[in-house]
Amino acid sequence: MSEYQPPLEDINFTLHHIGRLEDVSKLNGFQHADPATVSGLLEEAARFFSEVIAPLNRVGDEQGSVLTDDRVKTPDGFKEAYAKYVEAGWHGAHLPEEWGGGGLPYTVGIVVQEMFKTANMAFSLCPMLTQGAVDALVMHGGDEQKSTYLGRLVTGEWTGTMNLTEPQAGSDLGALRTKAVKQDDGTYRLFGTKIFITWGDHDLTENVVHLVLARTPDAPAGTRGISMFIVPKFVPDAAGNPGEENDIKIVSLEHKLGIHASPTAVVSFGDGGEGAVGYLLGGEQEGMRNMFTMMNAARIGVGLEGLAIGERAYQQAAAYARERVQGRKTGADSSEDVAIIEHPDVRRMLLTMKAYNQAMRALLYLTASESDFADHAESDEERKRASERVAVLTPLVKAWCTDVGVELASLGIQVHGGMGYVEETGAAQHFRDSRIAPIYEGTNGIQAIDLLTRKLPMEDGAVVRDMIEEMRGSLDDIRSVEELGGFADELESAVSGLADTSEWLLNALSTRTIDDALAGASPYLRQFATVVAGWLMARAAMAAAQGSDADSEFNLDKVATARFFGEHLLPQVNGLIPTIKAGNDLLEQARI
Amino acid sequence: MSEYQPPLEDINFTLHHIGRLEDVSKLNGFQHADPATVSGLLEEAARFFSEVIAPLNRVGDEQGSVLTDDRVKTPDGFKEAYAKYVEAGWHGAHLPEEWGGGGLPYTVGIVVQEMFKTANMAFSLCPMLTQGAVDALVMHGGDEQKSTYLGRLVTGEWTGTMNLTEPQAGSDLGALRTKAVKQDDGTYRLFGTKIFITWGDHDLTENVVHLVLARTPDAPAGTRGISMFIVPKFVPDAAGNPGEENDIKIVSLEHKLGIHASPTAVVSFGDGGEGAVGYLLGGEQEGMRNMFTMMNAARIGVGLEGLAIGERAYQQAAAYARERVQGRKTGADSSEDVAIIEHPDVRRMLLTMKAYNQAMRALLYLTASESDFADHAESDEERKRASERVAVLTPLVKAWCTDVGVELASLGIQVHGGMGYVEETGAAQHFRDSRIAPIYEGTNGIQAIDLLTRKLPMEDGAVVRDMIEEMRGSLDDIRSVEELGGFADELESAVSGLADTSEWLLNALSTRTIDDALAGASPYLRQFATVVAGWLMARAAMAAAQGSDADSEFNLDKVATARFFGEHLLPQVNGLIPTIKAGNDLLEQARI
Repeated sequence: MSEYQPPLEDINFTLHHIGRLEDVSKLNGFQHADPATVSGLLEEAARFFSEVIAPLNRVGDEQGSVLTDDRVKTPDGFKEAYAKYVEAGWHGAHLPEEWGGGGLPYTVGIVVQEMFKTANMAFSLCPMLTQGAVDALVMHGGDEQKSTYLGRLVTGEWTGTMNLTEPQAGSDLGALRTKAVKQDDGTYRLFGTKIFITWGDHDLTENVVHLVLARTPDAPAGTRGISMFIVPKFVPDAAGNPGEENDIKIVSLEHKLGIHASPTAVVSFGDGGEGAVGYLLGGEQEGMRNMFTMMNAARIGVGLEGLAIGERAYQQAAAYARERVQGRKTGADSSEDVAIIEHPDVRRMLLTMKAYNQAMRALLYLTASESDFADHAESDEERKRASERVAVLTPLVKAWCTDVGVELASLGIQVHGGMGYVEETGAAQHFRDSRIAPIYEGTNGIQAIDLLTRKLPMEDGAVVRDMIEEMRGSLDDIRSVEELGGFADELESAVSGLADTSEWLLNALSTRTIDDALAGASPYLRQFATVVAGWLMARAAMAAAQGSDADSEFNLDKVATARFFGEHLLPQVNGLIPTIKAGNDLLEQARI
Repeated sequence: MSEYQPPLEDINFTLHHIGRLEDVSKLNGFQHADPATVSGLLEEAARFFSEVIAPLNRVGDEQGSVLTDDRVKTPDGFKEAYAKYVEAGWHGAHLPEEWGGGGLPYTVGIVVQEMFKTANMAFSLCPMLTQGAVDALVMHGGDEQKSTYLGRLVTGEWTGTMNLTEPQAGSDLGALRTKAVKQDDGTYRLFGTKIFITWGDHDLTENVVHLVLARTPDAPAGTRGISMFIVPKFVPDAAGNPGEENDIKIVSLEHKLGIHASPTAVVSFGDGGEGAVGYLLGGEQEGMRNMFTMMNAARIGVGLEGLAIGERAYQQAAAYARERVQGRKTGADSSEDVAIIEHPDVRRMLLTMKAYNQAMRALLYLTASESDFADHAESDEERKRASERVAVLTPLVKAWCTDVGVELASLGIQVHGGMGYVEETGAAQHFRDSRIAPIYEGTNGIQAIDLLTRKLPMEDGAVVRDMIEEMRGSLDDIRSVEELGGFADELESAVSGLADTSEWLLNALSTRTIDDALAGASPYLRQFATVVAGWLMARAAMAAAQGSDADSEFNLDKVATARFFGEHLLPQVNGLIPTIKAGNDLLEQARI
């Protein structure tokens, strides 16, 4: 059975050296998040998620959430655990204090989310979506809407959902057809069917608040004509308590490869005839803007699932490799069998997992930290710079971490040998769970297109060039630290490669067909993210090698793990340069 | 629902240009396998496997094989389909004519296996194991054993199994404990429990012939003390028909991630007290030798599963991408939505799958062809050279194809978007099925160690150097074909990289610790296989570009697909050089 212990040492180290927690805690409104307080809080969180949430991961997979009598029943133990989670205040940790949250920086909130996701990815999707609804309401909700919904959503007393997809409208939301008809009282009535609605119904809370994209009768075609509506499962009464049941039918749940505990619903609105009661959020035809408000945080949250699966798979595989005795140590005199963790090939698999996990954590905390600066830094200039960084980092985090997560879950099975293929071992669940993350909240292909066509051209390429220059600027410092071995050389080569492809693509966007640039989008994202992650690992290794306790077990290990990333994994990205720069010709010529 | 159409054009092309079918058919004993006959036979096979076997893939996954009343029941339709398969003579196609087989070259037999595996991987494991048993009996069986078992195994009237693994003896068979006690009549009685026994029991045939590794009481420790026994489910009577039931109990079936139709049994021998009746195969303590006889073909067969899953996943994803309309063509004037196959990122995924599939097919057919030359070539020298090639190619085929198979199954899901994660779509089954292949028949880590420590040092490295020189020698020809674009340059660079790492590793094996070499074994295998596959794709593209119908749709496509492999995928391998040559230091230093 798989256990999960949050790696607090690496979490705190990364928060400090990459997430700039001290600087974040000096930002306006975050003074209560001083590093000592945060550290204590994360110890508590580690206890809670490892003891209360992690043990439900297997039962969640085995039982799954099921539809009975038009309602979703969650697996044994979920309801009680969710109540404890809300009770302890974890749900609102980084949500606004004004509405009952803890008001912590996202830099800290992301760690709480990381622990929830690593403990139980399927379960964690429920609060993730609620937090998206909170973001949308905070930004775009009217006063009455805020007072009715926000308090209950921030604490987790109610949960939220995102209703976007329809059968004919997946990645292309412009094609959606759900209809919203305005009534004389200013409310709307909704008609239509949504699919892939995560946690679309459940028995954890008294109410579920659906945020639904729909089209008003006279709206223009395409994404411009989309509006967003609040459609509660139970329409709140005058006192704000769940009142009359709305016309929302849970038609079915998908039978999925993984995340079985997360009910993925087909939801029908207005099946009863009169339409489901909905309230316009923001103005008409502002639905896409509202959706992106929800989606940016959700994209980072999904990126976190790559780390979560990678960490969980690593801990399980490492524990197995320490226990499983098989084969002699090659070249040893002894005829004693050893634990398989002694074999170099097994160590390579495990260290690959560990190094990627630390690199993903660094990239994620950097993104969360920049996000706090984007919202709270004092100067306009600082906020603008941070917000541009978040814009570039978000697709990297979403796509790279989730692709890597699948790869690490696969390695986790491999470390187990035949036992990894047996479901009871639990390694296979991570593999199955991991595979959704590259798909939802915008497929990884969409992320790559976003990076290439929207983020790279920002300020005529200056935002990306500035990031590249910052990485280049740190090379001398990295090279001066003897303990870092060949890291600086590999990083220099990788950064030059990224500069090369970035310029090629920027040029291609204006001088070639768009398809010539698009053909290289996905490998470009892989290259970009790996290089930034490599740079962060180099910075982490510098900090570890130069600190006052550089000889501590943790710091020595940090240097070795970071160097493994820099000298073994990072060099692989320059092999992507030819495919990034090859254009679309062969993709056109081949008969597919 | 997934359909499967064997890609006969590519199969025939690859058989001809890479598998050297014409030369093979001139070998002693294969004169009846002339290309025209083979082509007709493969058309029939394509019909049989796509119509009879492929439709059972989903039901096999959904129902699985189940244990009831101590016996295994296979999914609906399997028994009838198996009977047709035996009836049509497909089982014995490339098995010895002397025992009722078709006597076709393995170069042709592998194509029949490919079609079975692509149609239904879980089902195909049953004949694969029977064929292993046939190999062992042909090589090591006594006359009476041959006359009792071979005829029925060659036709598929009975099936065979390999009983190797025990709970404490996975990759390390030396640790196995199953006991075989000799009786006065020359037979043995076996006691012990085996796990992970593929198709360990079923209702397809009247008898199951277990080949079991066990230890005689006075045998030395380790692998040297192992013997192999024939242990039939029903002991044949004097007429050779299934007689008394043997003392073999099917204890349980594993609950696995995939290949649900394939019953993976825990088998207990001698539970009743008297011991299971067994017959020594070959001499005592020759068990390991016999096992390798079975295992080499099985390793190639498992490598074939990488192609099988990749091809099936590709066909399904491409069909979906042609039908699924979503989003406009970027940069197009039209506001019409297009099928997603028009989007460059989707085309990249599909062409990656297709190119890898063709490359795997080339590597597999080359291996099968060399295997025919190793057994049937006229001169000792030719046989020796071919047999050395097979020795090097076998771990490449097993590990590289199966790793790539998992990657392609993952891409296949991604092409489907959210639908790929829904089990009914079928893409997820391929992903689940694929994941066993890197594990069984020797984990891919074991294959890499085999390549590094046994195959690379053959003839002091001359076998590998000779392969590298052959590839180098073809560069001028490749470069002279204008249609091949930048392929020759990329191949030259990749071959040089392989020469570099091969020499480094050969040197490390004698001058460094063994762990320094072992640390790079897995990426070295990946590099080696990719380079050889790239070379084969270049040769295929030359043949396509230079043939009399170079402008046919097929040939133009072959050139484009091969160039995609050469110019987009192949360049990635040189990124592995640093990690191959980095040695074990960081793997030792990191705390895992």
